[in-house]
Amino acid sequence: MFESAELGHKVKKSVYEDEVPALREALLTAQMELAQSGAFQVIILIGGLDGAGRGATVNLLNEWMDPRHIQTHGMGEPTDEELDRPMMWRFWRALPPKGKIGVFLGSWYTWPILNRVNGKTDTADLEQSLGRAKRLEKMLVDEGGLILKFWLHLSKKQQKKRFTELEKNPLTRWKVTKRDWRRYKLYDTFREVHENVIRHTSTAEAPWLIVEGEDARYRNLTVGKILLKALQERLQLAQAPAPKALTPPWMPPIDNLHLLKTLDMSQVLEKKEYKAQLQKYQARLAELTRDSKFKYMSVIAVFEGNDAAGKGGSIRRITKALDARFYQVIPIAAPTEEERAQPYLWRFWRHLPRKGRVTIFDRSWYGRVLVERVEEFCAEADWMRAYSEINDFEAQLVRHNLLVVKFWLAITKDEQLRRFKDREKTAFKTFKITEEDWRNREKWELYEQAVCDMVDRTSTLLAPWTLVEANSKYCARLKVLKTLCDQIETKLKHLHESGVNYLDTPKKKT
Amino acid sequence: MFESAELGHKVKKSVYEDEVPALREALLTAQMELAQSGAFQVIILIGGLDGAGRGATVNLLNEWMDPRHIQTHGMGEPTDEELDRPMMWRFWRALPPKGKIGVFLGSWYTWPILNRVNGKTDTADLEQSLGRAKRLEKMLVDEGGLILKFWLHLSKKQQKKRFTELEKNPLTRWKVTKRDWRRYKLYDTFREVHENVIRHTSTAEAPWLIVEGEDARYRNLTVGKILLKALQERLQLAQAPAPKALTPPWMPPIDNLHLLKTLDMSQVLEKKEYKAQLQKYQARLAELTRDSKFKYMSVIAVFEGNDAAGKGGSIRRITKALDARFYQVIPIAAPTEEERAQPYLWRFWRHLPRKGRVTIFDRSWYGRVLVERVEEFCAEADWMRAYSEINDFEAQLVRHNLLVVKFWLAITKDEQLRRFKDREKTAFKTFKITEEDWRNREKWELYEQAVCDMVDRTSTLLAPWTLVEANSKYCARLKVLKTLCDQIETKLKHLHESGVNYLDTPKKKT
Repeated sequence: MFESAELGHKVKKSVYEDEVPALREALLTAQMELAQSGAFQVIILIGGLDGAGRGATVNLLNEWMDPRHIQTHGMGEPTDEELDRPMMWRFWRALPPKGKIGVFLGSWYTWPILNRVNGKTDTADLEQSLGRAKRLEKMLVDEGGLILKFWLHLSKKQQKKRFTELEKNPLTRWKVTKRDWRRYKLYDTFREVHENVIRHTSTAEAPWLIVEGEDARYRNLTVGKILLKALQERLQLAQAPAPKALTPPWMPPIDNLHLLKTLDMSQVLEKKEYKAQLQKYQARLAELTRDSKFKYMSVIAVFEGNDAAGKGGSIRRITKALDARFYQVIPIAAPTEEERAQPYLWRFWRHLPRKGRVTIFDRSWYGRVLVERVEEFCAEADWMRAYSEINDFEAQLVRHNLLVVKFWLAITKDEQLRRFKDREKTAFKTFKITEEDWRNREKWELYEQAVCDMVDRTSTLLAPWTLVEANSKYCARLKVLKTLCDQIETKLKHLHESGVNYLDTPKKKT
Repeated sequence: MFESAELGHKVKKSVYEDEVPALREALLTAQMELAQSGAFQVIILIGGLDGAGRGATVNLLNEWMDPRHIQTHGMGEPTDEELDRPMMWRFWRALPPKGKIGVFLGSWYTWPILNRVNGKTDTADLEQSLGRAKRLEKMLVDEGGLILKFWLHLSKKQQKKRFTELEKNPLTRWKVTKRDWRRYKLYDTFREVHENVIRHTSTAEAPWLIVEGEDARYRNLTVGKILLKALQERLQLAQAPAPKALTPPWMPPIDNLHLLKTLDMSQVLEKKEYKAQLQKYQARLAELTRDSKFKYMSVIAVFEGNDAAGKGGSIRRITKALDARFYQVIPIAAPTEEERAQPYLWRFWRHLPRKGRVTIFDRSWYGRVLVERVEEFCAEADWMRAYSEINDFEAQLVRHNLLVVKFWLAITKDEQLRRFKDREKTAFKTFKITEEDWRNREKWELYEQAVCDMVDRTSTLLAPWTLVEANSKYCARLKVLKTLCDQIETKLKHLHESGVNYLDTPKKKT
């Protein structure tokens, strides 16, 4: 795997000086074209061995190109903020928008490799981490991103020579630390793990590019030329029409029976009884969120439902019981410009709560498989792959002790009509009803199909959907509150039993 | 996940009888078109719960369509033959050729699920198995295959009802076994594992299709319609031109230095010394392959090299030391018609040796990234993905105690010319030299590049490449023999130390 990167590649100074000006100019041109078109995001990972020139390569990219369009991220030890969220959160928030280049020194591979070398994890754990990394990269590529993974390599002999030389020179002595020598002693172990990582994650869409690190001129030319060719080819491709993707098989409607039809929409409740129950559940919720173990978990409540199904009203009954400093309600409308320049999940990752907090999404990432599917805002292949991307996203949350509670508020078509008309008649409610609501209503059956598929494909043991019969607002609000309380209680019970008392990511598999 | 499959779906008899004739006719038409075009292979997995109608569905497909173009495989306990090979071997040999439909009752999911339910494996092990399954399916789809994964589901109540009903009737009592009731008691455990499996392996290219199993008419119509739509759409797509794939980044040549240039091609050896050494290594090889632990491993030796580099001669020096009953030499030329109707790795899977045997491939699966790449017999995207497919293939072999020893026999361009001319002059050698050899020679540099990429991307710790300087036939043969002996010895040592004394697949991860 490292054979060609241990040959002693070298480029003569005269050759280098001859080639660099044209290369830099071409790189700048490509970069400008990228920035102006905003066609895709470029993610560059710089991995490899200590002393192989990772830092120098990052500097080089910033020197050769316009640094205003490059974002460099040295990913060291995670911060408290970051430890509070799933591992991938720090990378999501660092993703470059379309048109920009993000350079990562240290990546989603760094800790899995270190943990394996230090024996904190075994091969199966490592493979699980690598599986997550591959799914992330596949998603980024499917979203149009260009990923370049450079691996700067040195042979054992070269690494020793490099450290020794640096130490001899008083001006560079600081570059070599005790940690470097400690890691050098583990060279063979590292090499074995590195090879395993590279073998598992050199996919066709994002292969590792192994570059011999010893000779700076060789390294620079190699990295520069790969980057140039990749940018140019992708810019060209970005102008071509999207190819027709394979259509996966799909469930046909056979007997006109579906999930939403099984709901009992005739439930009613007296106001007096509602008031009493509401108080009871709000008190219970207040108590639960003040439990001593609540600081080790967080809650994400997702609200989806028909227009006018009463999402807002249900949410207000929840927040009334919460401490205003510890919750956030995120209303999801059309994405902002900044959000459109990112993969669709980005705007949800950015709002993930810290430990001990509650975040309520009024509409959510499920827009991808609901409105975006029905209104054909994205291609069939895109919302098809979204189911597994979403399951994967939620699995990461749950793994990190984020409780994900998902509600679909369902009303009948007649009830919606009644509410729409009511909104039009009542002065202080007219802002709630728009032309769009009437248009959506025309696609009622398509939305129903999308909702059933969504529940079938994303209701998991980790994060189940709760279907809420919402023709009666009272019944709906109580079912929401009760479900939320029940699920928090179960989670807290689990935390008490497992004796959790740390805030950082569990090191071992769950 | 199973929500929509527990609703009590039903189709009336009159509706069913109305719809079936047209559906059957359309299925037959599609099947005939598939058989005549030979455009792709169809792989249907029938998974799900006991009593949910898996067997009935298989019978149905054979009844509704032309059974001559359907191959049905009930995958029960593996045979001795199968246990001797990596787990996937039995599925590879059962793959339907292009134009045919293969129906699998029991699949690569069956044992991972059972092992997890029985507690023989943990979640991480399961995920590793599922990773292998996904890679296999992705490869099959990339090779043009259509995969349909049906999951026939019953709720716990439905399953109990089904078993009870069957038992009451003396004619169907035999259908319910003690094992069925034992599994019924584990319903919740199974459900959890099933959900995990479905969530992880519902990819966009091959999602699980969950079908409620209780009502036979509903089940039949659903399966039939999905199959019809999938066949029709894929047949249509098969006629469209292939879309332009993303070009992944690739290593540019920078300093004109590559692996093959670092070989010392000036080695020479006296005939007398050669004879002595040859005898020594052949004796050692004979001894090693008769070691008491050799029956727990097998050897695959792969020979690739320049034309006229002496592959045949080296192979003959190996086989001379082997017992003729225990080795096979497989010369790889252009694929047969049967082989062309399968994914490219199929013809290598079929030749995998049993335990205690040696198989020597004279050329191999590396043709994909050598001749097929250089001669453009396959698209860039196809040979690009081949590297990881090959690594994955070899990892499966190594995991199963198959030792993979790979040789590249290199000669210089001048030496090749000398040998070509010699072959033309010598009467009994002329059969060895063809027009094609001369044509290949013109692409010398392209082949060199392909060889270097191949070594860089597929030389792994599990299965490293050995580059053999073959300008001297004597030196080459000895290096081959010595390498082979060394690697067998290391493997045997490992087997002796680990005290292996079983022939079947290791149950736990390695």
